[in-house]
Amino acid sequence: MVIIMRPGADRETIEQVIDKVSELGFTPHPIYGVINTVIAVIGDRTQEAMDTLGAMPGVDRVVPILRPYKLAGREVKPEPTVITLPTGVQIGGEAVVVIAGPCAVESREQFLATAQYVKEAGAQVLRGFIYKARTSPHDFQGLREEGLDLLREARALTGLPLIAEVLDTRDVEKVHEVVDIFQIGARNMQNYALLAEVGRSDRPVVLKRGLSATVEELLKAAEYVLVGGNQQVMLCERGIRTFETMTRNTLDLSAVPVLKHYSHLPVLVDPSHASGHDWLVPALAKAAIAAGADGLIVETHPNPAQALVDGPQSLNPQAFRELMGQLPAFARAAGRRM
Amino acid sequence: MVIIMRPGADRETIEQVIDKVSELGFTPHPIYGVINTVIAVIGDRTQEAMDTLGAMPGVDRVVPILRPYKLAGREVKPEPTVITLPTGVQIGGEAVVVIAGPCAVESREQFLATAQYVKEAGAQVLRGFIYKARTSPHDFQGLREEGLDLLREARALTGLPLIAEVLDTRDVEKVHEVVDIFQIGARNMQNYALLAEVGRSDRPVVLKRGLSATVEELLKAAEYVLVGGNQQVMLCERGIRTFETMTRNTLDLSAVPVLKHYSHLPVLVDPSHASGHDWLVPALAKAAIAAGADGLIVETHPNPAQALVDGPQSLNPQAFRELMGQLPAFARAAGRRM
Amino acid sequence: MVIIMRPGADRETIEQVIDKVSELGFTPHPIYGVINTVIAVIGDRTQEAMDTLGAMPGVDRVVPILRPYKLAGREVKPEPTVITLPTGVQIGGEAVVVIAGPCAVESREQFLATAQYVKEAGAQVLRGFIYKARTSPHDFQGLREEGLDLLREARALTGLPLIAEVLDTRDVEKVHEVVDIFQIGARNMQNYALLAEVGRSDRPVVLKRGLSATVEELLKAAEYVLVGGNQQVMLCERGIRTFETMTRNTLDLSAVPVLKHYSHLPVLVDPSHASGHDWLVPALAKAAIAAGADGLIVETHPNPAQALVDGPQSLNPQAFRELMGQLPAFARAAGRRM
Amino acid sequence: MVIIMRPGADRETIEQVIDKVSELGFTPHPIYGVINTVIAVIGDRTQEAMDTLGAMPGVDRVVPILRPYKLAGREVKPEPTVITLPTGVQIGGEAVVVIAGPCAVESREQFLATAQYVKEAGAQVLRGFIYKARTSPHDFQGLREEGLDLLREARALTGLPLIAEVLDTRDVEKVHEVVDIFQIGARNMQNYALLAEVGRSDRPVVLKRGLSATVEELLKAAEYVLVGGNQQVMLCERGIRTFETMTRNTLDLSAVPVLKHYSHLPVLVDPSHASGHDWLVPALAKAAIAAGADGLIVETHPNPAQALVDGPQSLNPQAFRELMGQLPAFARAAGRRM
Repeated sequence: MVIIMRPGADRETIEQVIDKVSELGFTPHPIYGVINTVIAVIGDRTQEAMDTLGAMPGVDRVVPILRPYKLAGREVKPEPTVITLPTGVQIGGEAVVVIAGPCAVESREQFLATAQYVKEAGAQVLRGFIYKARTSPHDFQGLREEGLDLLREARALTGLPLIAEVLDTRDVEKVHEVVDIFQIGARNMQNYALLAEVGRSDRPVVLKRGLSATVEELLKAAEYVLVGGNQQVMLCERGIRTFETMTRNTLDLSAVPVLKHYSHLPVLVDPSHASGHDWLVPALAKAAIAAGADGLIVETHPNPAQALVDGPQSLNPQAFRELMGQLPAFARAAGRRM
Repeated sequence: MVIIMRPGADRETIEQVIDKVSELGFTPHPIYGVINTVIAVIGDRTQEAMDTLGAMPGVDRVVPILRPYKLAGREVKPEPTVITLPTGVQIGGEAVVVIAGPCAVESREQFLATAQYVKEAGAQVLRGFIYKARTSPHDFQGLREEGLDLLREARALTGLPLIAEVLDTRDVEKVHEVVDIFQIGARNMQNYALLAEVGRSDRPVVLKRGLSATVEELLKAAEYVLVGGNQQVMLCERGIRTFETMTRNTLDLSAVPVLKHYSHLPVLVDPSHASGHDWLVPALAKAAIAAGADGLIVETHPNPAQALVDGPQSLNPQAFRELMGQLPAFARAAGRRM
Repeated sequence: MVIIMRPGADRETIEQVIDKVSELGFTPHPIYGVINTVIAVIGDRTQEAMDTLGAMPGVDRVVPILRPYKLAGREVKPEPTVITLPTGVQIGGEAVVVIAGPCAVESREQFLATAQYVKEAGAQVLRGFIYKARTSPHDFQGLREEGLDLLREARALTGLPLIAEVLDTRDVEKVHEVVDIFQIGARNMQNYALLAEVGRSDRPVVLKRGLSATVEELLKAAEYVLVGGNQQVMLCERGIRTFETMTRNTLDLSAVPVLKHYSHLPVLVDPSHASGHDWLVPALAKAAIAAGADGLIVETHPNPAQALVDGPQSLNPQAFRELMGQLPAFARAAGRRM
Repeated sequence: MVIIMRPGADRETIEQVIDKVSELGFTPHPIYGVINTVIAVIGDRTQEAMDTLGAMPGVDRVVPILRPYKLAGREVKPEPTVITLPTGVQIGGEAVVVIAGPCAVESREQFLATAQYVKEAGAQVLRGFIYKARTSPHDFQGLREEGLDLLREARALTGLPLIAEVLDTRDVEKVHEVVDIFQIGARNMQNYALLAEVGRSDRPVVLKRGLSATVEELLKAAEYVLVGGNQQVMLCERGIRTFETMTRNTLDLSAVPVLKHYSHLPVLVDPSHASGHDWLVPALAKAAIAAGADGLIVETHPNPAQALVDGPQSLNPQAFRELMGQLPAFARAAGRRM
């Protein structure tokens, strides 16, 4: 880290900071400037050490040097992480993968119909969400435990691996029995108890970026899963919150090359939640692949106007099929395949 | 709600939307304009109905009319909610209340010393956090269960009621035994399983606004607690995430009069997390009272440069005492007392 | 517009608003709900009328129905605007166009060398900025008038049309003599005097989106140029300001399909200013084309480490050539050509 | 500045950066870490040098140490700047000052009536805006030159000094003749040609913070005025753009103590534009004084529902008088007077 002293900090104040650096077990390198003095510090950074030094008299600010994630970073593991699903499908490899399905499992008819056409159109993983995080307690909260059997049935029917969200540490075990991938949603990106719980599991995890999470915080959240021993983490950009209201969120596609640059983990993009409008999904799905994404999460519904959740952003079967037909050209342009 | 049709939507498309409105059990009021047609809809709004109609062909957007919270709103309960603690201290009444303590309980010495001077300086509630939500798993996570006895001891020593954060549904019961107020932190504002759990308890709850939560979303999150039967909810503004980097977050003091206007729940302000710097806390604490806050949550530490968490924003004992001496004049100017 | 009355507004208050609507020349359509009353208003919306009604007692808020731009909208002109440059190159047509050059004209050597390789690599327009908007007055402000002759020379040498930024109404005339396209930069998107001035000119205008401008505000700013009689306006997404700090700005690629949906004007993307890092530019350039952009503005410099402005985001000649070689595959995938 | 090299940068790459630092005239202090190497650089920072070094191979990022403003900073001038108006009123001294008036000068009746009651209520400066920056060209643009005589008349009538906004470099001279203070509005905070123009004048300048400007950028914009020789600059916080939609903007009151800490310039707050609602103005005005503001800019109108601009946020005469009666108690609590 680099400690920047306030202009005018006197020698004694500076010496106290230098002493504290040594006391914390680091090697201080003071550089005396005309206006500001700077103390470069060699050694492993921790937030505690930064906070301690930042709280000392005369310190203007403390600038971190090392990136605050370790297991998620390219320094520890330069080669990309490739996750292999039970069907042999790989995420993070050469192929671009599509995860698709309804926002929520609503009924047997709706879910099995979707599973069917999603498979036929070429998607490799099926969304089957039975717990829904809704901003209001007065809205539909998902089929919950009642949906577990539908998930089993859809898998038996299509052979597709399933992804589902967990919202509560107490549900991890029962969801574990029926799904192939856990999703941690945007609102729970910093629910550390939940991250730790899926970190102890043997299922791959899709970790969605929080609405106001920086790329660095997303990587630090991934660290909670990795540190538990679960190395199969996929990061998912799904739009961040900005002042723009034309779209539900602002899809930050720069996050794709940035994440691929600093981390070895696969990167997915969810154009449905990002945009909030079905007619925007195709353009953003294509752009995500062009930007280097390893896969997409796309919402689709047999009849969006009947959907209990997020109908406006769900592609109908025809629109979904059309999109699936257009994506391979972009994957090829990006040097990938589908 | 008001449904705004796209310019050029034809009669048939419009009729289909009108029919769907009736089918959903609402009364449609179409108003045909030269460019856009608008369909005003009388009846109780739900997100599902809005989504359904928003997903129909020809619909440009759906604008809600009713505010999406019910139990938290002034319409249902015009008079302010006043919460009475076991010591008789009231939050939401005439007096402005100060909740103070360290960011984290670190040790017996640190916590009891803080409890002592915090009480002497006039604070009415003691912060005693034993679970810490940290952005990195490599940082100090709190004393956890080991801290429970320290909380008991501090209460016995000072007689002050205690507030502590819960991070996991599985911890609610054991924390319930030792604290007087639950805190739901900013990162968990939309952890609905946790909200539901404290909603079933008989302890008052401080619900902190998420980093990127709107005022409306904060009220909808409060709804999750209220709907469980727990009416003792306090809202806390603690800074939102913006592009500004001089402060840790941007304290949104407008939220104070806005929340008091639309809701009957007491409103607190946390100037410590909002600013991230001890030297900014006094100005913001005073401004919060001037803006109409019912109370403050202030971090203080016997020796900020030794703090394991958030030292830079913690007031030392002397600064805390000074601030406590200056606040009453602002409370009086605002027609309150301390 | 739709006027939403506060819950509990009495008949008399509601009647006064209805009367005011009529007085302003609109037709009011009141719809009386159990909690809120709503007054739908047919007629042309103006900000003044909305403000007047919004300021009346009992009014909670006023929701606009019509989009607040006219000349820029698809309602008035459904077919796309195609802008033809003196060389016959068209922007907004089938082909995707690349505008390239250094951030600033620095010297004869630098600018002519860039012009040369930019042309050879296939760019159709040359950036030649001689006035620079810098956040600090202590930074390089551009060659200013001294650069005018260099612009002439570069055009004579390459035959490429030139684009340059104007910062002051008093400079429009002299820049007009040497450039083919005016740029209005992000910081001046709401410099209405300047917009009006280029609106009176016969040169095409690239209007960059302000750092915190919504898509709607960008279209309203374009309206200032269009209303002056200049129909040749191109919109440019160049990143908005968010909390993310890994990139200089957050490129909002959703803005591309949104702008194309609501407006007939061509849409360009500037991946250089958006990202701030040369290594991010290619991924974002490709994504922009996949999202439907009509063209790109790319910064390149013969020796980025010698650049006086924005070196870190400038592609060196080799990187620029490589990118130019990769883009056509994405244009083809998007059904365009280069 | 501190140059942080990428992990794994080899000796040769590092040496090239060190050489470049020397070549630019600075003294390099390399510190070799296990993962990253850091090069601390002593000497005066310029954006150009930072850009140059940031563009070199192997450089991860460049962190500035010195604050990028000079004339506006406390380092150069520790004592506060106090601005004395022709009436002897001082801004930046012990007293808190109120600037008030309508958003726009609309007519003789409206303006003179406002001037009268504003003076009687105790305001010390009169707002008289004749050029209006409106987001749409179809909205009222101000009385423009026709309003000049009204300004003269209002000053003759009340003796109050006048503040008015300039939008175009070509208008500065004529506005100079009739006003005592120039305002540079939020949208023009980075209109450098305009800043330079008022920087050459002998009138005090109120510089409003841009909607998405950081505190540091506000100080850098002030630098453009100061560098021209005009030392009479006041900074004005008026709300920044965030995701929150309940208020027009988000008032960032932390900016008040931050600006007072780093700069010697007086700091004003505009609670009217920040909130957008008359009923929010009093709470924010009081909070601004509690936070340490040197003055307020408040919009008031004889009949807000008749206002051509910003009626919803304008106080009516009675509400304005009430507020003026309540503010002194807060000024006294803050150790100031009114």
